[in-house]
Amino acid sequence: MGEQKEAKSKGTKDREIPPAVISRLPKYYRKLGTLMDGGVERISSADLSRQMNVTASQIRQDLNHFGGFGQQGYGYNVENLHMEIGRILGLDHEYSMIIVGAGRIGLAIANYTRFENMGIRISGIFDRTPEKFAGREYRGVTVNALAEIPAFLRKNRVDIAALTLPSEAAAGIAPVLIGGGVHGIWNFSHMQISAPENVMIQDVHLSESLLELMCRMNYVSGESPEQRS
Amino acid sequence: MGEQKEAKSKGTKDREIPPAVISRLPKYYRKLGTLMDGGVERISSADLSRQMNVTASQIRQDLNHFGGFGQQGYGYNVENLHMEIGRILGLDHEYSMIIVGAGRIGLAIANYTRFENMGIRISGIFDRTPEKFAGREYRGVTVNALAEIPAFLRKNRVDIAALTLPSEAAAGIAPVLIGGGVHGIWNFSHMQISAPENVMIQDVHLSESLLELMCRMNYVSGESPEQRS
Repeated sequence: MGEQKEAKSKGTKDREIPPAVISRLPKYYRKLGTLMDGGVERISSADLSRQMNVTASQIRQDLNHFGGFGQQGYGYNVENLHMEIGRILGLDHEYSMIIVGAGRIGLAIANYTRFENMGIRISGIFDRTPEKFAGREYRGVTVNALAEIPAFLRKNRVDIAALTLPSEAAAGIAPVLIGGGVHGIWNFSHMQISAPENVMIQDVHLSESLLELMCRMNYVSGESPEQRS
Repeated sequence: MGEQKEAKSKGTKDREIPPAVISRLPKYYRKLGTLMDGGVERISSADLSRQMNVTASQIRQDLNHFGGFGQQGYGYNVENLHMEIGRILGLDHEYSMIIVGAGRIGLAIANYTRFENMGIRISGIFDRTPEKFAGREYRGVTVNALAEIPAFLRKNRVDIAALTLPSEAAAGIAPVLIGGGVHGIWNFSHMQISAPENVMIQDVHLSESLLELMCRMNYVSGESPEQRS
């Protein structure tokens, strides 16, 4: 146990990757997937950069964190890079995910078949009012009470919890998830979750994406809504 | 008309802001709001940087695009900076938004009261099967047929359309929205939308956020799910 811990913290140190790089990897991955679907076999970092609004040197720097994948003058092998980034993203693993909060967002996630291709298996759904969902199944999973989470976590390995409760309810549940051994919380509640170092919290703020759109409409196009009317 | 066009394209040139900067502004805005709620009046770029996982020089560079807001050695006035960034984001305007697709995500957006504080007013909801929603209202708005969108856009100013249809249905609707004068599309469909320069498309890929979480769980913590079990 002690040995394992030491090995782990050493690994973490060696692998320090800036959060901004990690947030760009899924975008590279998606872009490369689209290129593959379009039959593109090779792409230069210059072309990739043009298509992705990132400088070519940024792309090279980002990929160098993982050992680099291009050959000078030959560009990137699209399929190969797609596979390598997929591996870095952890797509070669299987994840068990529970959904905590069966509201609109929670059930949208439960029904999002695309996640299966990412190795995500929905293993449980929990809600404050499970009786509302009596007799219904979402991808073969029934909705159970929040109070059943601790027992569920004792019996089942759960890697990720999508936390889709309103923040006041989420506050009480986050420690239960962490205490029960969940290693990643995909946090849609607007609550700030404190967690030990080995538990990753990924906050989702849909409003940030809308603000970004508003900013681009306003500032980039230089027109206010009133001017457009 | 010709004059207006020239003025506009000139404005766009002068104001060229890198997309990465624009995507960080909502995060600054949210952070500053949290600091204000906590009674913080001033913050140095070093402290802000620590709390936001962005380097202090990055913060200064980002804000310099808009004229900078700090005084050397005094840090930032939190309330003032919050207000200024809000203005850049366009929060001093009112936006009319329609929701195209009354699925789980579409209705979650319709019911998201937080958007009202951002100056967003839901003016219409449209779906392929409006009869499913007969007699129901979402924040005072009924659900109408997709075929009614062109007439609605002729009668009402609509700034933003949240496109929450599946991609096959979204493909046919995007040109209708753009042709009808919508200036921003908040695109939840997984379709790539081509639009003229003055129409902004903001793609939302929830799976990217989940991939980022998986990457951090895997690569940063250095443990695969199998090792944790």
